[in-house]
Amino acid sequence: MPGTTGISRRRMLGTGALTAATGAALAALPAAPAAARTEPAGNASVSADVVVIGAGLSGLTAARDLIAAGRSVIVLEARERPGGRVYGLPLGDGTTSEGGAEFIGPTQDRIAALAQELGVATFTTYNTGKNVYYRNGKRSLYATDGLLGSVPPDWGVIDLQFAMLALGNMAKTVPVGEPWKAAKAEEWDSQTFHTWSRSSSLSSGARFLLDAFISATLSVRSRDVSLLYVLHYIAAAGNESTPGNVDRLINTKNGAQETRFVGGSQEIPVRLAARLGDRVRYNAPVRSVVTGEGGVTVTADGITVAAQRVVVAMSPAIAAKIDFSPALTANRMQLMQRYPMGSVAKFVGVYDTPFWRADGLTGQSVADSGAVDTTFDNSPPDGSRGILMGFINQSNIRALDDASPAAIRKAGLDSFTLLFGEKAANPARTAYQRWDNEVWSGGGPVGIAAPGVLTDFGAALRAPCGPVHWAGTETSGFWTGYMDGAIRSGERVAKEVHAAL
Amino acid sequence: MPGTTGISRRRMLGTGALTAATGAALAALPAAPAAARTEPAGNASVSADVVVIGAGLSGLTAARDLIAAGRSVIVLEARERPGGRVYGLPLGDGTTSEGGAEFIGPTQDRIAALAQELGVATFTTYNTGKNVYYRNGKRSLYATDGLLGSVPPDWGVIDLQFAMLALGNMAKTVPVGEPWKAAKAEEWDSQTFHTWSRSSSLSSGARFLLDAFISATLSVRSRDVSLLYVLHYIAAAGNESTPGNVDRLINTKNGAQETRFVGGSQEIPVRLAARLGDRVRYNAPVRSVVTGEGGVTVTADGITVAAQRVVVAMSPAIAAKIDFSPALTANRMQLMQRYPMGSVAKFVGVYDTPFWRADGLTGQSVADSGAVDTTFDNSPPDGSRGILMGFINQSNIRALDDASPAAIRKAGLDSFTLLFGEKAANPARTAYQRWDNEVWSGGGPVGIAAPGVLTDFGAALRAPCGPVHWAGTETSGFWTGYMDGAIRSGERVAKEVHAAL
Repeated sequence: MPGTTGISRRRMLGTGALTAATGAALAALPAAPAAARTEPAGNASVSADVVVIGAGLSGLTAARDLIAAGRSVIVLEARERPGGRVYGLPLGDGTTSEGGAEFIGPTQDRIAALAQELGVATFTTYNTGKNVYYRNGKRSLYATDGLLGSVPPDWGVIDLQFAMLALGNMAKTVPVGEPWKAAKAEEWDSQTFHTWSRSSSLSSGARFLLDAFISATLSVRSRDVSLLYVLHYIAAAGNESTPGNVDRLINTKNGAQETRFVGGSQEIPVRLAARLGDRVRYNAPVRSVVTGEGGVTVTADGITVAAQRVVVAMSPAIAAKIDFSPALTANRMQLMQRYPMGSVAKFVGVYDTPFWRADGLTGQSVADSGAVDTTFDNSPPDGSRGILMGFINQSNIRALDDASPAAIRKAGLDSFTLLFGEKAANPARTAYQRWDNEVWSGGGPVGIAAPGVLTDFGAALRAPCGPVHWAGTETSGFWTGYMDGAIRSGERVAKEVHAAL
Repeated sequence: MPGTTGISRRRMLGTGALTAATGAALAALPAAPAAARTEPAGNASVSADVVVIGAGLSGLTAARDLIAAGRSVIVLEARERPGGRVYGLPLGDGTTSEGGAEFIGPTQDRIAALAQELGVATFTTYNTGKNVYYRNGKRSLYATDGLLGSVPPDWGVIDLQFAMLALGNMAKTVPVGEPWKAAKAEEWDSQTFHTWSRSSSLSSGARFLLDAFISATLSVRSRDVSLLYVLHYIAAAGNESTPGNVDRLINTKNGAQETRFVGGSQEIPVRLAARLGDRVRYNAPVRSVVTGEGGVTVTADGITVAAQRVVVAMSPAIAAKIDFSPALTANRMQLMQRYPMGSVAKFVGVYDTPFWRADGLTGQSVADSGAVDTTFDNSPPDGSRGILMGFINQSNIRALDDASPAAIRKAGLDSFTLLFGEKAANPARTAYQRWDNEVWSGGGPVGIAAPGVLTDFGAALRAPCGPVHWAGTETSGFWTGYMDGAIRSGERVAKEVHAAL
């Protein structure tokens, strides 16, 4: 399969061809303290004030802030690269394209600030023209600010707007980051989103688009999440001065998909990790965290760190793989059994030109059949070549669990052809990134909650267990599930740990 | 706190004072083959045809059958005892009482056969007199075959019978062990049990008892499980010749709580493990399973085993702690994030006599307030002393997450006094077993499924991943969640592995 890059069930993901920039504008971090340097032996034994587990955006941000506050920090990362769910997917020709978290939008202030600090520029997501809507075997075009915003009423989905309005109104009553405190939390957390979306007398078209909203946003099915979780996610789509709303979550223009990063979102964790220097240890999956009289001992492959505090900057489901001693609280242990990751892959076709632009299309689409249910134009800023990206979500990627790279390539290109015509059938190359079988993430984009979980276990997302503190985008109030939320969680946990030391 | 045995966040649980019987009636298993004997060194390296991970009933049964079929087997157990969720709780005076799985009932043929083979006798659960019903601050008595069976209609719950009948009728259409194949699987797996129980115009009394049914059976709340999961559980309460039904699940007489084991249910795994001799290695939590060209390498604390096949005889949530290489299928990995354990503790009061019997009471009760929501008479067969056992389920045990042993003792005895009067206030001793914070079980009695999980991931409960096979009561068709289901799963997986070798 020439030109196809398929990564299937790989345990480690390379960084591709990355450049760790060190702009002169950046304030230098203090040098890593002597105590935090590796001994020459294969099995290093070091000490630091704080161990951060996970070199994704949350862990790197926490480390940055703790170091700036004068603490010594070691970051232990299971992979051979930083970034976690932020990843530059190698295209097989020395370049990369977005393989994981990608976009930023209005009110995502913390990632905007970090990108600026690191000198990572942004550009606007291509959004000129019409979107493609494929349903019941028929392909239509529509103009909108987002994937679901303004589907024509004559398609029988006039009631979608009412449903979205109802969701927005409910979400306004959900305390950001503490959805279990909503007045109607019990009611909303006792039912699935599917139940809610079927309890109103909605048209089948509106129901399809509500399911598509859940799939595109969370990579799960409507029945997998509680209504309260969805409202919590909507409430989170804002900042301290601007309440969250549905449009900001789903839209491209004025929404969470509005803007992209020059060089790819990976530039942010790569540059941040480079500033932390050898405080970040790669290929060091943490196996155990043992708390004793004198502090905490964190054991990873090849390195053991003695520290006073630990930050677990991982999604709850993956944090469950670590052996904690003494055992965590029951609420935390059981939370980690109850916050599963969505199922998602990104499939990419690389073309000589973004041909859909000439056809008057944005490259965005939503479909009810085929492997890909949502697409975006992921071409580079100058449009010098065309990159079409399709999400393979929930049931669609599960159906490909045992598929060969060739079969996945065919499934992806069949979808692209259905949506964008025969020109899509023969890209120069393809690549994909599966997250659902990637052991250090366990899925993506984010941990989700079935009914009952947020109200009964939600407080355990952030509550420290002795010297063990929790970060990760799942612990964020605003923009949980997004890069911005990851950074917010890192900033929050750094303050928390600094105060506790 | 004299006479109180509280085990909080302990990682290992002792066997108490057990006698491993070796009755002459038992056919001797072949001696452990030389290849399966430990080397003298601290870090042993051995080989066997099959490694079984987990010395609960499923793992021990699988080992027994594979050995009988001529295979060499090593069983690796994380704890210092066999039995898993079957456990004799030390009372502090050299005796034990039931701390985990306890009862057997009609159609549970496989555990009946194993108990007989091992010479473990049974006796009838004390069930003479009336039950206690405590709701809305009022204590009433009622006569019934089970906790919920025949609550008097004048309590406003006449409609409970209709709800139970509807559940039974739906359950009849659910294929045992393959609920995702039910004609209405999609509909029933898109909603929580809570949604279903509120969608009919049921009285508040019936709703309370439906919630109590879920709590007493699964130690979760009605919103935590899908309707399909509950129907699957009902369908499983039978055998090949007798379809499952609700009454057999919930009743004492003619139901799953009808019979107990002399000496405690622990006698079964303890005797079975004794027959396996030094094939069972304790204090050996498995950390990794690596599949290579020549077979599988299973690494546990203190021992590494080379084998051809592996049986993981653990609940899905706990199996997720093992590092598998190459990674498992995405469906399996994500299933293990989506099959959380219930939250349960057993609280026991030991009295000079079973005083409630003299009061005309069975010792069984159901309550809407207090820490304990369900009780049983757990006295020994001869009634020489009285042992009252109360379940602390779901939210009630979560509320005690940080409670001291003294606070848990008080909460348990307050409940007992509410239900059985002042005589219950001063037992000779108390003890309790929490499962929700016990790291090698992670909860109990069984893994449960939120909406969507069985239909989308259920097949991964049993589907082997290369040389890795799956057992445990969660994988059973009949009597999933019970000891009988665990044994059935061990018998099934032994056949599966034997055929594959």
